[in-house]
Amino acid sequence: MEDTIFFKPKGPFSLNKLIDACNYNDKIHDIKILDKANEKDITFFESSRYSEHAKYTKAKACITTQKLSEILPKSCKKILVKNVLLEVAKISKKFYPDADIDYPDLSLKKPKKSNYPSVKFGNNVLIGKKVKIGKKSIVGSNTIIEHDVQIGKNCVIGSNILLKNSVIGNNVVIQDGCKIGLKGFGFIPMKNKNLKFAHKGNVYIHDDVEIASSCTIDRGSIDDTIIGQNTYLDNQVHVAHNVKIGKNCMIAGQVGFAGSSIIGNNVSIGGQAGISGHLKVGNNVKIGGGSGVIKDINDNEVVMGYPAIPFRDFIKNWKK
Amino acid sequence: MEDTIFFKPKGPFSLNKLIDACNYNDKIHDIKILDKANEKDITFFESSRYSEHAKYTKAKACITTQKLSEILPKSCKKILVKNVLLEVAKISKKFYPDADIDYPDLSLKKPKKSNYPSVKFGNNVLIGKKVKIGKKSIVGSNTIIEHDVQIGKNCVIGSNILLKNSVIGNNVVIQDGCKIGLKGFGFIPMKNKNLKFAHKGNVYIHDDVEIASSCTIDRGSIDDTIIGQNTYLDNQVHVAHNVKIGKNCMIAGQVGFAGSSIIGNNVSIGGQAGISGHLKVGNNVKIGGGSGVIKDINDNEVVMGYPAIPFRDFIKNWKK
Amino acid sequence: MEDTIFFKPKGPFSLNKLIDACNYNDKIHDIKILDKANEKDITFFESSRYSEHAKYTKAKACITTQKLSEILPKSCKKILVKNVLLEVAKISKKFYPDADIDYPDLSLKKPKKSNYPSVKFGNNVLIGKKVKIGKKSIVGSNTIIEHDVQIGKNCVIGSNILLKNSVIGNNVVIQDGCKIGLKGFGFIPMKNKNLKFAHKGNVYIHDDVEIASSCTIDRGSIDDTIIGQNTYLDNQVHVAHNVKIGKNCMIAGQVGFAGSSIIGNNVSIGGQAGISGHLKVGNNVKIGGGSGVIKDINDNEVVMGYPAIPFRDFIKNWKK
Repeated sequence: MEDTIFFKPKGPFSLNKLIDACNYNDKIHDIKILDKANEKDITFFESSRYSEHAKYTKAKACITTQKLSEILPKSCKKILVKNVLLEVAKISKKFYPDADIDYPDLSLKKPKKSNYPSVKFGNNVLIGKKVKIGKKSIVGSNTIIEHDVQIGKNCVIGSNILLKNSVIGNNVVIQDGCKIGLKGFGFIPMKNKNLKFAHKGNVYIHDDVEIASSCTIDRGSIDDTIIGQNTYLDNQVHVAHNVKIGKNCMIAGQVGFAGSSIIGNNVSIGGQAGISGHLKVGNNVKIGGGSGVIKDINDNEVVMGYPAIPFRDFIKNWKK
Repeated sequence: MEDTIFFKPKGPFSLNKLIDACNYNDKIHDIKILDKANEKDITFFESSRYSEHAKYTKAKACITTQKLSEILPKSCKKILVKNVLLEVAKISKKFYPDADIDYPDLSLKKPKKSNYPSVKFGNNVLIGKKVKIGKKSIVGSNTIIEHDVQIGKNCVIGSNILLKNSVIGNNVVIQDGCKIGLKGFGFIPMKNKNLKFAHKGNVYIHDDVEIASSCTIDRGSIDDTIIGQNTYLDNQVHVAHNVKIGKNCMIAGQVGFAGSSIIGNNVSIGGQAGISGHLKVGNNVKIGGGSGVIKDINDNEVVMGYPAIPFRDFIKNWKK
Repeated sequence: MEDTIFFKPKGPFSLNKLIDACNYNDKIHDIKILDKANEKDITFFESSRYSEHAKYTKAKACITTQKLSEILPKSCKKILVKNVLLEVAKISKKFYPDADIDYPDLSLKKPKKSNYPSVKFGNNVLIGKKVKIGKKSIVGSNTIIEHDVQIGKNCVIGSNILLKNSVIGNNVVIQDGCKIGLKGFGFIPMKNKNLKFAHKGNVYIHDDVEIASSCTIDRGSIDDTIIGQNTYLDNQVHVAHNVKIGKNCMIAGQVGFAGSSIIGNNVSIGGQAGISGHLKVGNNVKIGGGSGVIKDINDNEVVMGYPAIPFRDFIKNWKK
């Protein structure tokens, strides 16, 4: 799966132009997460959850708090602030001034058959610039595919779908009404006017995935959102920004994932369950329908309940 | 924000034509809620929840029960019935015979650029009669804006959206797939054929609001539905008829509001929480994800659980 | 309501071509559920829940387990397997090779007024071959009605709707954004590549039904999905494959039904409740908002909670 850039960063900026009261004048080319940043980038470190990545970051500079800064390598310049995410919001807005609102793609046109000789299109399909669609894929009527989206071979993309900022593998099925690649629910709350957070990330949907009707999958903010190979989502599932779902998962109807959670492989989740943000769910986990997961779950666990507890305990409590 | 009338009342009717076995023959021009009705209107009073408004209503007449009627002012003619909402349904149908089913607007046309010189439109946008859209607003492809809808300045309205019976402020962002201003879930259950309730109300969305993808916001029945300034809704939120949400609120994904609840300012609600109907949630309240709120919540409370209880108690119970 | 075939079975096949290691060579024309199969069909029996139907099946042959096979009548040839649904998936794929993915209908055209003289259409409506629409029905803009769908008289079908594999009665209202008749969430989980289950069933929506915005109603797999007369669904309800909902039901917003559950008449279900798969909910049952129903419910019961328990007990527990 090719890496694609939907938003190109402005800049480079010197550090003291990115952050008030910063004396460094190193040139910074982009803002990235801890484990993806390199020596041209700035990164951020706002929670001890990410200490393992912080220890080894290659970033030139890192926005963080006094306390967390000690974990960072010496090579990384520490920018100490009180509210990490507020600074990140301001900086990412400088690099990506157009990524904090979902401006509709106004370059859409009907697809030229000569550009997509082996693709079948329904009526009124609208395609942005540089969209790639693989052989033998089918796209249903009234579907919108915005600029630079990539779709693999043998895909079936239904009707009334909107795809943006997304890279989609082979043999993927997306059913009618899905909205994929939109800006996530990220902002800094402020009285009278919130500060919108730039969402420059992508959605990656791997081979053999099936996504049922009317799901919403938001793109990442600074990271990406990922749906792993052969994972199936039922109707009306909500996947927030930066969520990563592994391979061979089964996600039943109306499940919701809050931002930045990481789900392992072979995980099954019953209908209407909710997974809080920034959690880690292990491999082979089974989560019962309607559960509310509010802490990490180890590999092979079976949980149910709100909040989710081991399944046996849930059933015991019920029988009382 | 201008007041707009999407449905014009038939009539006036004399009271004895509106209600069987009523001797008064005063002319009645409209049906309104207790605190909005004036001396030309009929109103209704079906629950002691609304006693404060009942005491001071200026309505010419009020449909109510024997017991509640004592709270009404002397100036208001009491129409005593057994089933208040059944009578209201019948009367509102006389005033608004076309408001109980969402007849699609069949007057839609592609927007004339000369009517909207500074608005950018995607492809296949359909606009009804007398639609107003403010300067520098953008409307994405395949979006439908029905007659008389008003949209302010600097708005970004995504693709595949349907707007009707709505008045939208400035700097509002609405993401793809939202359906706003539709008829709510109001009817009188009857064997074999329910009696549909007219929905003549509007949706008001104030400045700086952001509504993420695939939300549904129903218009009011006799009252209006309101989203306050700088309130943000995440994907797949459901807002039922007559709900009023205050300013600066954060509503996470898949939250549902049943009809007629009133939410204060600065309220944050976690994903998949549900708020029952006819409740009052105070200012600065925090409601945890997955909660089921079934009673009023005072200002500044933090609650979680199903049913929602103070957050400390919820955590205590969990640790047992 | 006329019976319609959206998918025609291939075949007939002789039994030994349908199933490896089977010696019978009877000609089999279709695969059907226990109580609908006749002497030309194969059926399947995978759970003791269906024993009553198994006893009287008229099917020529039945895929089942050793243990369950004893319940079947002598006239029915038993095909003993370890994983009944895996065999059913393989066989139904032979009969219905195109029913396991929702290929968009590529035969859509704008409706010819001469074919639908008394039907009113919005803009950009797309209609497949052999679609029938009754007198005085209205279809909103951007709506897609795929081949062979039947719609009765006096229906109001909103905008941005997709209908396929569906038969819809008279006086039905479907609000904007609904997706009805799509393939359900049925497959055999397999590492790296799930085996998709053919969905040849229909959706039947009876007279006087109202379905609010953005609902998803999946068609049946081998059986059908049914919404009974005068039943009303609020916004964002999810009805999975094979679900049968009775008459005069009220289903509030964001309710979810897992596959194959059967709901009686006059049932009311509060917002965000979830009904697990393969359950039976009796007549006149009331299910509180947010409930999680995980076992059968008898007639006239009132339940609430997760898991759902009698309402009195729920309130008692809460007051503790």
